[in-house]
Amino acid sequence: MKRTVYLEDHEAFRAMARTFLEREVVGHIDEFRAGHAIGRDVWRKAGEAGLLGLEIPEEYGGSAPEDYRFNAVFIEELSKVTMGLASSLSIHFDVVVPYLVRFGTPEQRERWLPRMATGELVSAIAMTEPSGGTDLGALKTRATRVDRGWLVSGSKTFITNGASAGLVLVAARTGGGPRTHGISLFAIDFPSEGFSRGRKLEKVGQPEADTAELFFEDVRVAEDQLIGELDRGFAHMMRLLPQERLGSAVCNLAHARRILDETLEYARAREAFGQPIGSFQHLKFLLAELVTKVEVTQAYVDDCVTAHAAGDLSAVDAAKAKWWTAEIQNEVLDHCVQVHGGYGYMTEYRAARAWQDARVTKIWAGSNEIMKELIGRDLGL
Amino acid sequence: MKRTVYLEDHEAFRAMARTFLEREVVGHIDEFRAGHAIGRDVWRKAGEAGLLGLEIPEEYGGSAPEDYRFNAVFIEELSKVTMGLASSLSIHFDVVVPYLVRFGTPEQRERWLPRMATGELVSAIAMTEPSGGTDLGALKTRATRVDRGWLVSGSKTFITNGASAGLVLVAARTGGGPRTHGISLFAIDFPSEGFSRGRKLEKVGQPEADTAELFFEDVRVAEDQLIGELDRGFAHMMRLLPQERLGSAVCNLAHARRILDETLEYARAREAFGQPIGSFQHLKFLLAELVTKVEVTQAYVDDCVTAHAAGDLSAVDAAKAKWWTAEIQNEVLDHCVQVHGGYGYMTEYRAARAWQDARVTKIWAGSNEIMKELIGRDLGL
Amino acid sequence: MKRTVYLEDHEAFRAMARTFLEREVVGHIDEFRAGHAIGRDVWRKAGEAGLLGLEIPEEYGGSAPEDYRFNAVFIEELSKVTMGLASSLSIHFDVVVPYLVRFGTPEQRERWLPRMATGELVSAIAMTEPSGGTDLGALKTRATRVDRGWLVSGSKTFITNGASAGLVLVAARTGGGPRTHGISLFAIDFPSEGFSRGRKLEKVGQPEADTAELFFEDVRVAEDQLIGELDRGFAHMMRLLPQERLGSAVCNLAHARRILDETLEYARAREAFGQPIGSFQHLKFLLAELVTKVEVTQAYVDDCVTAHAAGDLSAVDAAKAKWWTAEIQNEVLDHCVQVHGGYGYMTEYRAARAWQDARVTKIWAGSNEIMKELIGRDLGL
Amino acid sequence: MKRTVYLEDHEAFRAMARTFLEREVVGHIDEFRAGHAIGRDVWRKAGEAGLLGLEIPEEYGGSAPEDYRFNAVFIEELSKVTMGLASSLSIHFDVVVPYLVRFGTPEQRERWLPRMATGELVSAIAMTEPSGGTDLGALKTRATRVDRGWLVSGSKTFITNGASAGLVLVAARTGGGPRTHGISLFAIDFPSEGFSRGRKLEKVGQPEADTAELFFEDVRVAEDQLIGELDRGFAHMMRLLPQERLGSAVCNLAHARRILDETLEYARAREAFGQPIGSFQHLKFLLAELVTKVEVTQAYVDDCVTAHAAGDLSAVDAAKAKWWTAEIQNEVLDHCVQVHGGYGYMTEYRAARAWQDARVTKIWAGSNEIMKELIGRDLGL
Repeated sequence: MKRTVYLEDHEAFRAMARTFLEREVVGHIDEFRAGHAIGRDVWRKAGEAGLLGLEIPEEYGGSAPEDYRFNAVFIEELSKVTMGLASSLSIHFDVVVPYLVRFGTPEQRERWLPRMATGELVSAIAMTEPSGGTDLGALKTRATRVDRGWLVSGSKTFITNGASAGLVLVAARTGGGPRTHGISLFAIDFPSEGFSRGRKLEKVGQPEADTAELFFEDVRVAEDQLIGELDRGFAHMMRLLPQERLGSAVCNLAHARRILDETLEYARAREAFGQPIGSFQHLKFLLAELVTKVEVTQAYVDDCVTAHAAGDLSAVDAAKAKWWTAEIQNEVLDHCVQVHGGYGYMTEYRAARAWQDARVTKIWAGSNEIMKELIGRDLGL
Repeated sequence: MKRTVYLEDHEAFRAMARTFLEREVVGHIDEFRAGHAIGRDVWRKAGEAGLLGLEIPEEYGGSAPEDYRFNAVFIEELSKVTMGLASSLSIHFDVVVPYLVRFGTPEQRERWLPRMATGELVSAIAMTEPSGGTDLGALKTRATRVDRGWLVSGSKTFITNGASAGLVLVAARTGGGPRTHGISLFAIDFPSEGFSRGRKLEKVGQPEADTAELFFEDVRVAEDQLIGELDRGFAHMMRLLPQERLGSAVCNLAHARRILDETLEYARAREAFGQPIGSFQHLKFLLAELVTKVEVTQAYVDDCVTAHAAGDLSAVDAAKAKWWTAEIQNEVLDHCVQVHGGYGYMTEYRAARAWQDARVTKIWAGSNEIMKELIGRDLGL
Repeated sequence: MKRTVYLEDHEAFRAMARTFLEREVVGHIDEFRAGHAIGRDVWRKAGEAGLLGLEIPEEYGGSAPEDYRFNAVFIEELSKVTMGLASSLSIHFDVVVPYLVRFGTPEQRERWLPRMATGELVSAIAMTEPSGGTDLGALKTRATRVDRGWLVSGSKTFITNGASAGLVLVAARTGGGPRTHGISLFAIDFPSEGFSRGRKLEKVGQPEADTAELFFEDVRVAEDQLIGELDRGFAHMMRLLPQERLGSAVCNLAHARRILDETLEYARAREAFGQPIGSFQHLKFLLAELVTKVEVTQAYVDDCVTAHAAGDLSAVDAAKAKWWTAEIQNEVLDHCVQVHGGYGYMTEYRAARAWQDARVTKIWAGSNEIMKELIGRDLGL
Repeated sequence: MKRTVYLEDHEAFRAMARTFLEREVVGHIDEFRAGHAIGRDVWRKAGEAGLLGLEIPEEYGGSAPEDYRFNAVFIEELSKVTMGLASSLSIHFDVVVPYLVRFGTPEQRERWLPRMATGELVSAIAMTEPSGGTDLGALKTRATRVDRGWLVSGSKTFITNGASAGLVLVAARTGGGPRTHGISLFAIDFPSEGFSRGRKLEKVGQPEADTAELFFEDVRVAEDQLIGELDRGFAHMMRLLPQERLGSAVCNLAHARRILDETLEYARAREAFGQPIGSFQHLKFLLAELVTKVEVTQAYVDDCVTAHAAGDLSAVDAAKAKWWTAEIQNEVLDHCVQVHGGYGYMTEYRAARAWQDARVTKIWAGSNEIMKELIGRDLGL
């Protein structure tokens, strides 16, 4: 089925992004994976190419076409290189930037956005805590009111870009309310006194995306580091959730789709028992099923992109896209591994890597179980 | 996700069709199921209401808006009443009519279409044979050339509307070619000498859609009963396949969606262990999953409808829609039965009926296996 | 894998039972299904053949070999004929009889067992109610204390043998305790004043097993109709649950296995596209999977039978056997239908009937969801 | 369900093996995984403890209890430590040793078995080739007849213990027959002239089990290095296949079962939203399902162990055990990862490692697809 969501401009941008990635990134992926970080050069060159400022107004150095479809195109192209590249960069340009643009004061925007646009400043967002997982209501990091600011104490974990970020958006408890009430967001620079990072976490996949624990011990935060309204952090997060979920969905599906395409190539070329393995009926049917599922899912994700570009995507529809694409992505990739036989278990093969990289998508940024809980509530259950 | 495929006109037509169905059909369904046939009155009234002529040019008594979306809307509304109603009527107005419109001569159209528009003449299409199933290449019914016509001999089975049809489109072998070569299509009236019908077949579901075996013993067929070109029947069928498959897909999904909506109502209202059953997490998650799958699938089906309305739907994309909707429909309905507990096993409950009605959709009109074979070939496997 | 659970004696008994069924039952199944009841002759002849007294002590006319494996063998052979035959007879000889044998007084046994052994008296057990489903804690049927007995009022539904039973074991609330406390069991004869039956329920499958609603309006029940201890009915039921669940599991699996065997035959014989359909790789793999699942499951069920014959089967292991066999049975049969193509949708085919017959096994006698709840609790969750 | 396959002796042996593993291995696993090899000390200490000689006759330094159940017990205990440990050691004591014991001459046994019993000599088996995967009929490694021996040329890949083995059993083509005809087995020592090893392969999991490519360039092999009969290698392999497949099955299930037990502990202890996560109904049901599947599968595997210990296990029943356990293992472990949330994606967690370790079991030693092909053939399809 021909996709209709992207117009000429988007495809031109896609071609540019792809050229950039092929020239500046693809050849370095092995090195990034070994080094457990995206090279800083990539950030700067992406900034130069204008790829990090898709949500940043021109006055702060961005291009802000105010059309989410450009974000989606860039996420697709990143994920075709690797999931880890996509998650690392998209946390920055597609997740953190919008907080500053939407909820930041002019001074705050001026302070951070220009360097975020150039890639000089890498950003992260720190919500998850060791004890509480995805339950924001169990947040323990506390910002205690002191003269002209707060003292932030607590710890965060599973923070993408955690080891490389110079700016971290931190959710902390400022009010006395129960569960999700009384949470606020703070922009904290690294280095800051009392703010330290743990070691890079060893993950199942996405080694190129650095992930770390962050520790805050009486980190002093000034008034002007509060992002948005005091005690209204949860509401702010809710407002940006559709985009974060949709970004995940776009990434999940484009990633699976690319590896499936490569696997189709493999199944056409690789022979066993005297014929291409893809011509065996079992595999032929299986691949037909996977292609169908991917195309069906694409129709929905594209509708979500269209809706979000028009400002119409609900958090619950984004939740549907997020969990379902994660499910399909993992199902597709598991079969891609199987198609590759023994090679599918060797990490030099892209199918093997992709399988490892993808496993987290059913867990992070609101697990599939959390998504279903939200959808169920929306159904009045 | 809001659907965008249908515009105001289509929704107005939907409202009209729904009113018709509620007034003339819904109250009689039990009787039709018991009697193993849609009442003849329904056909005539649907004809009067202009519902059977959606593909028939005005000169032959139809309305032919030349917009497939009207067909799709009507199929959706029919299937929400019952699958059997939808399959019986859609074989007529959405499958047989197009053969006459596309491949018929002006005389042939004049001869049959006006009475098909009014519902006076019910039609069927007869391809499947007892020995060959869905393999058209194994077709055995033979049309032997005689003076000014042919003698048709053979038998057909699983023919929807087989017992009530006054006109049957029959595929028979006219040429000597192998497999799908040398097949032609004939329009055969009932009664005709040598043409008899077997008993109505007892099916697992859809009892209101009469299904029968048809027997042809040297049935004389004149030159002007050949529809389309001699020996080119398979090519003709291929050309109309996208619409037939898409019609199935539209029906499958609308049917499942309606029963799922009713099941959601049930899950909100029915209590067990002191709370609505839908509030139990297992069921809440399950229903969230089913709603997601239905909405994701709807996005794809709607894209297919849009594409077909523009004349752009490929047979292979229609195949994807057909098998996938059949799969989802059956999965959804199996769970709907389970949600209803013991009542889900009682045929007075709509979920139970729907479950029985739907089972055939993975089999008929090209089984899911056949669809996957076609998709696999299209992938170059 | 060779089964080791049954010894020579059991196999001799199996041969006898099979002969009986082939001679007295198989040829009448169509008629029983049309008439919505197992013929009374079958009951009497089964009684004569000694097949109904497997749990009844010799003094009351039974054979009571005190070896559950004979029960299991008979259930297997019954289910190979039809599920409905198995459920109808096994409710009697494998479920109701044990209540009287274990909890009945000598007088009660003398009163009912001899006629149950001969098949003169058919029995049923009535727990489920229209409003409460499988939640025994929500039981509403009440037995009010009166002079020398009780007055029972309430209604029951989905009662197998409900229309033909001369003796019904009824669960009613005698005490004031919450939920499952204060329930007692009563043996109520039909006819009794105030005890009436509703129409036979129209089910999706198993038409030969009559199923009915039962109504009790101030039905007078004497002291000697209380089975077991007053207010301890729930505890009594719990004690017999392992056998009831295991009987279901044995039936589910033997039923699926037989139809799968028949389907394998079909797949070897039926040709399409010039070769036996079973030789197509998709179907070959599918059937290999189904055979594996059935044999793996058989190993577990046989272990359960061995354990139960030794008095060692826990209710929770029986629950595992019950839900898992129901799942496998339905999965297997759904594929068996598909293998049969269009014929799989025609009720004259055994695969079609079996598919309809089996759907209830995931629901009745404790739904799969209830079984998982129990297993989860046993895991300390 | 209580397992009955193992008697007191086996359980005593299990306790001994477990003590050994806890004392000598468990604490070193991180180091073995980092170093991509099981420490040589482990081999020697296992040899001293008598754990490597379970199939080796006493005269050659083994204990040969001639009861496969001891092998199975040891495999279970190994796999509970890690899959990689189990695969590395079991290739040696459970796969290679039997070739020498069954098909070796007294001289050959004397030459290699004693050092294999002590762990001084590590062994590997080399069948798979880069181009042919699991298709033995496509074997290209050739042994060309020369004076008093052969010259072996070719390459092998995915060889467990490939980097550490001092003895490799190599399948090579000696005859001119088609496909699996004319294959012979040779025992080749390392070092030997012309025999080199490639780098250790980077796998998705099981890093502690070294895996390598092996290259043979005119490696001279003497008459007395032929194991079994000339040109009958395939038949020899077939004869030992049941044990190799069963060993896989035993390992797969014990591995999954242990991680599931650990995950149950986690689900009981970890809290979210104010309650243990395992008490949420979705997770409770899921864990109930997984426990059921594991226990059902255990019944079958144990039956296979019993049958094999009695010399009665067919290759096709072993194939059923192999593919099904691989399926269940991977399904169980994927859910175990999910239960652990974000921690399930961190390689320091056992669930994460196990998930990566297990992925290969659906592929190696005859993929699930190959197993289904064999089962299908056995069914006459």
